[in-house]
Formats: sequence, structure tokens, C-alpha cells
Amino acid sequence: MLPQTQFVKLPAEARHATGSVTFPRGFRAAGVAAGIKRSSRLDVGLLVSDAPCISAALFTQNAAAAAPVHITRESGRTHALRGCVVNSGNANAYTGEQGLADARHMRALAAELLQLDEREVAVASTGVIGEQLPMAKIDHGIRAAAAELSAGGGLRFSSAIRTTDRHPKRGAIAVDVPGGEVRLGFAAKGAGMICPNMATMLCFITCDAALEVRQWQDLAGAAVRESFNRITVDGQESTNDMVLALANGASGVRLDAEGSRRVGEALRAALECLAIAVVADGEGASTVVRLSVTGAADDEEAEAVARAIADSPLVKTAFYGDDPNWGRIAQAAGQALARGQRLPTASARPPLIHPLRLDIAYGDLPVVTGENPRPLDDEERSGLHRYLEQPEVDVSVHLYRGSASTHVYFSDLTHQYVTLNAEYST
Amino acid sequence: MLPQTQFVKLPAEARHATGSVTFPRGFRAAGVAAGIKRSSRLDVGLLVSDAPCISAALFTQNAAAAAPVHITRESGRTHALRGCVVNSGNANAYTGEQGLADARHMRALAAELLQLDEREVAVASTGVIGEQLPMAKIDHGIRAAAAELSAGGGLRFSSAIRTTDRHPKRGAIAVDVPGGEVRLGFAAKGAGMICPNMATMLCFITCDAALEVRQWQDLAGAAVRESFNRITVDGQESTNDMVLALANGASGVRLDAEGSRRVGEALRAALECLAIAVVADGEGASTVVRLSVTGAADDEEAEAVARAIADSPLVKTAFYGDDPNWGRIAQAAGQALARGQRLPTASARPPLIHPLRLDIAYGDLPVVTGENPRPLDDEERSGLHRYLEQPEVDVSVHLYRGSASTHVYFSDLTHQYVTLNAEYST
Repeated sequence: MLPQTQFVKLPAEARHATGSVTFPRGFRAAGVAAGIKRSSRLDVGLLVSDAPCISAALFTQNAAAAAPVHITRESGRTHALRGCVVNSGNANAYTGEQGLADARHMRALAAELLQLDEREVAVASTGVIGEQLPMAKIDHGIRAAAAELSAGGGLRFSSAIRTTDRHPKRGAIAVDVPGGEVRLGFAAKGAGMICPNMATMLCFITCDAALEVRQWQDLAGAAVRESFNRITVDGQESTNDMVLALANGASGVRLDAEGSRRVGEALRAALECLAIAVVADGEGASTVVRLSVTGAADDEEAEAVARAIADSPLVKTAFYGDDPNWGRIAQAAGQALARGQRLPTASARPPLIHPLRLDIAYGDLPVVTGENPRPLDDEERSGLHRYLEQPEVDVSVHLYRGSASTHVYFSDLTHQYVTLNAEYST
Repeated sequence: MLPQTQFVKLPAEARHATGSVTFPRGFRAAGVAAGIKRSSRLDVGLLVSDAPCISAALFTQNAAAAAPVHITRESGRTHALRGCVVNSGNANAYTGEQGLADARHMRALAAELLQLDEREVAVASTGVIGEQLPMAKIDHGIRAAAAELSAGGGLRFSSAIRTTDRHPKRGAIAVDVPGGEVRLGFAAKGAGMICPNMATMLCFITCDAALEVRQWQDLAGAAVRESFNRITVDGQESTNDMVLALANGASGVRLDAEGSRRVGEALRAALECLAIAVVADGEGASTVVRLSVTGAADDEEAEAVARAIADSPLVKTAFYGDDPNWGRIAQAAGQALARGQRLPTASARPPLIHPLRLDIAYGDLPVVTGENPRPLDDEERSGLHRYLEQPEVDVSVHLYRGSASTHVYFSDLTHQYVTLNAEYST
């Protein structure tokens, strides 16, 4: 079952199913304990389609991207990946030439065992950074995983990619489309970290619909933009983030425009559930905030204001304290707007005026309208505090500068975040 | 005495003196308890020069700037300010038209009592935001302060601008220049906040040298760029930040090129001491880190990388844990470099290569050279942990991309930061 959240509902045509990435037909997976992690937990996974796939792959933008990201991205065949090999417990990040060679070896060995072209295999890693992979263990693990591949292996694969996630992030859905039913499967890992030094987000998506490369990449790209690209725990983009979406056509159901729309909606809802679960499972998080920014001059301004608010440690600590400290929201918005005014794009934006006009509301309750704080009566004030104690909270900011809008999900900043990240020792 | 730090030494021509903003000749100041703060602490201050001044004034860039910032900045006479009226306990920020009217009233009343032109008077406020000023108390406080003005009032003025600063940030220096001695006085407040909702930085500088407007503004601007503009506690720019520097010529010593150089160096060192004290006194800070970034493609890139590292909560919590977690430094640098590559200015920069090359060192100890982690022996490792336990720590990052460099001072992220900012309730 996909993680549940009040923010997102599956569309009517989609329903939850049991399983993970092997719920769609024609996929096999495995997860084994290779001894990379100190415990005996699963840490090497394989996923493969019986038939050739079309694929969409999205990678971290970090210039210090890890070796597996580099190797997979540069393969030149990211539209036709058919399987992947993953390890947890070691990110193979900042490992120099040796790391690149090790990632190439992982790919070559997996390709050989799966009888695929190397360029059909993605490589992903997550875990500690700055340490070389224990290649004897990895080698042994990949061989063991290949021997265990099965159409029921999705759950073990999901476990093999986890690091310190407190809750599983996987699930499957079936979607009714004209011509039949198509299936989608998901395995993700998120932002519980300390062990890997930084939060890595990995997500593997399988689908048995038949569609065109461009169609699938558009669907997957749009769904990722509205889900994993709309979340932030601490504003830090990892060296290892990767989303891999494989579609193998095994259902025999070809998607027409309506089918494509339905699968796209279901895919987006599923990824949003997973992305929000990543935030909720973020290091020490006690609250997930959905922030809507409207009335921005353009998309870039909306995004900058939303990110500035979501990543402000003052805003984040206020939500930890269940405190409607809107002054910190106004301050972060003002800082982002002023910075945006110094960019080359600013010439097309309306000038900043003083005092700055904006509306701020928590849930349905406005606390600032125009430039003026709205005094709350006692009942409103206590209702607002009760609202902020909930695990999922809505906040909206309107800027009076245009018609662009966006939203972002973020977590609060807690004592537990500091403990997790300060007490871990390299 | 100015706050002490091992990072900065006063130049040979300068020496510490007793006092604050009234150490230079021809300045009077006062601080009174007007009842704005709940306690009976001082909360209204006045500072004035007996003779006309030349001045430099620098303001927050935040688009949500507070009313006093707006009123002072728009006066059109920020090069010839002669006095200022300040209150603590209430920031007059996000207070709409009423706030602007109140700031104007503060200025008009102070000007009347000091017998100055309104446009010669700056207004500054710091404290809670989103609440209207208690104008009856403010009015009474300004009148009381005017009655108490004295050439020994600098210390009371310093106290009146403090909010939750744990340590005073003031001092005075005498500088030997060709032709005599000139004096400089300082009163600042910094980033201990919770009460004011966000850290406001105010700094008042007095000087009795005789110089030209352009000369003084160049000296003050350069000193602020190398001090207050090089610090970060949590990356949040307040709505109320203001630096005001007044020079009245009362020493009768006119600065030639050599005198100007000496005063500039002393001014910069003094402001650096104050700025580092602001970081050290930052909310819950236990460590001040001086981060040097070298080998950047250009100044903008150096700045972006330095800020990304300094404001990363992962980096900041690692310093709290006294942990040499250089992976988080590399990750933040990689994120900033990738973002910079998408800016219009990127066309003039060398392309990013994979793996990213960089050096990282703690103090004198390299931990990464080129793209390779440098394994530490046990002695190096324990020495490094002892080094990181110190209250002031040096870190350097070299990028192999060009010859631009910068530095920034930042604080760690501690449990106490979260406590201070989460437990404060609006």
C-alpha cells in the first residue's frame, strides 16, 4: 500500500494493490544481504524487465554527483533502460576514478548476469559517502540477487534500497484505461539519513502499459515535477538522487489519449504520496507543511519565494513549535523578492513597493491581509494553535504581483534533526 | 572594549579605548527605559553630533523592510545624517501605514528636541514584529532621552539598542594618523533574538575625523562589506538591519591618504570584531567557523559556494557535533556550482567536470585533495577532533576553477537554536 496522506487522493480510475515494483506484469526483482551494512539487512537489489522497455531517468543536478549517477547518465541510453542494480550502505560518492570503475563493474556484472546490453542497466547507490565500495561483497551480492530474481521479489527489492527510512515507501496501483487495466509499481527511499551522511532520494517505477518513449517521458517528467521536485527537508540536494521509470508493455494495453491522461494522473498522485512520505520521514520531522504561493510575477519568482520560506530555519522551527509566526514567513518572502529583483529576469517584473503587500493564511484562517496583520480573537487564536498541532498543515501566501503560483511540501526543524545530524560521527 | 576574537587583530596604529559611541569628540548620547520591553531595561536611545556630520548608511535589502528603514532610506539625506533615534522591544515591522506614520513621528519629535532638520535624523527599531509601536511610551521615552543626553551617554545608548544579546557589542578605538589622533566609537546589536522574532543587526559608528563624504562612504562601505556582509547565522536577512556611520570632524584632524588608509584598516578590524561577535552570540551558537573559498571561477561563484556551505543545516549540525564531515561541504559546494551553471553569467565560466575536483582542509589539515579523500591516521584524526572542539575554527575549500576567492563567518546549528526559535510563542 502506498503511504497515505490527507493532501492527496488517488483518482477514481486507480486503486491500491498489494506489492511493489513487481506488481506490473513482466518484471522480476530481488534483494539480498551482501554485508555492506553492518547489520544483516538487505543491501543489494536487482530489478529487470523480461522484455525491452522504454524508460525515463531523472538525476540529481548536484555538480558533485556520485559515480553511479555519472555512469548511468552518460550511458547515452537512458530512454531504453531495462533493469537496474542498486546497493545501499555506501553511496559511492566522492570516490574518484576508483568509484567510477566500481560503478562500471557493477553495471557490467549485472548486465552479464541478466543477459542485457550494459547500456540497458542503470546503477544506483545510497549510503555513506567518501568511502570506496567493498567490491568483493558487492560482487557476491549481485550474483546472489541474480539467482533470486522472481516475480514476487518487489518487496525484498524495496527493502534493499532502504537506509534509515523509518517507514517503507512502496506500493502498487491498478489503473482502468480504455482497452483494459494497466499496473504501476513503486519503490522509493527517502530522507532519513545520518548513516549515509546526506539524504538520498531514490525512486523506481515500473509500468506494464504499452506507450511511446516521448509519451512515457512526458508522463514521468510531469509527475516528478509535481512530486519529488516539490519537496524539501533541508534544502540540500544529494549527490545520488535518481528516479528511474520503466515501461515494458507487458499488459498489451496501448494507451490512447484518455488512457495516457488517466495513467498520468494516477502516476502523479502515487509519486506525490511517496514524496510527501519522504518529507514526513525527513530527519526528525514532526509536521509536513503544504505551502501554496499565489500572485507571483512569474514562475521563477513563485518558486524562489516558496523555497525561501520552506527552507528558512526560522519558519521551520516556528512550525515545530506549532506557532503561527507569520512574521518569519513575510521576512523570508521579502528576502527572496529582493534577491529576485537583482536578477536579469527582474526587468519584466513589477517593481517592489513599500510596504510590501501580501496575504498569509494558515488553513482557512487569514492572519495577514494586504499589508496589515489581522488581529485574531481568542477563539480564532486557540483554533489556530490546535490546527498547527496536526501532522499535516496548509499555509498560503499571496503576493499581489501577478498570476503565477506554485506549491511546495516541507518539514519542520526539530531537536531530533539536530540530534540525528550532529551526533552521527564520520 | 571591543569583543575579542583570534581571527582579527587591531592594526598597529589603533588601540582600544574605554567607552562607546561618545568616545569620539563632539557626540552626545542617552538611553532610557520607556517601558516598551516588559522589564525595566533601557529601550529608547538617542545619539547626536554637536556639529553637522557626513554620514554613510546601509540598510537591509529585504523587500519587507520595516517602517523605520523605509523612512530613513527615503529621506534623501543619508549622506548628511547627524543623529538618530532608536527603540528596542518593537521592530515597527509589517505595521502598514500606521507604522510609517509612527516612524515619521519618532523622527519629527527627535529632530524637534535636538533642534535638527528632520532629514538629519535616522530612525531605527528592533524587537517584535507585526505589532504597532506603543507611541505614548515612545514619545515619553524620546523626551526623557533628549533631557539626558551627555558626552558620557554612549554606554547607556549601547544598552538601549540591545534585545536578547548575551554579550555587549560595543567599544572604542583611537587611531594615530598623520596630524594627530582620531577616535572611533561603536555600538551594535546582533543575532540573539527570539524576542524580536528574527535577528536584527544594528550598528552605530561615530568618528571625529574630518573627511569628505565620498571618502567616508568608501571607508564605511568597504568595512561593512568585509564584516557584516560576510557573516551568517541562519541565512535570514532581517527586515530592520541598519548600519549608520557618522563623522563630525571634531578632532580637527583632516585625513590624508595615509590617514584614510589607517582609519579604514582600523574601522574594518573593529567591525570584523563586532560582526564575529554577532555570529558567536547567534542563537544558540557554540562555534564560529571561518570558511575560505578559493579557486572559484569568479566572485559570484565564490560567494554562492561559500553561502551554500555556510547556510547548509547539514554542515552546521556537523560543526555542532565537532565532526569533520567534509562530505556535506562537498555536497553543498556541488549544489551551488550546479545552480550557478544555470545562471546567465555561467557562459563565462569553465564547464563543470565529473568527478568534481576540490580540496577541503580543516585548519592546516587537508582531508580532501583533488577528487580524492585523504585517509587520516589515528593521530591526525584525534588532533582534528580536538581542533573542532575549539570555539573558533578555520575551514578552507579550493575549487580549481579560477582565481576568485572569498570568506564568510558562520555559526553552527544547535539544539539551543531550535529551542530558542521553536519555544518562543507569538
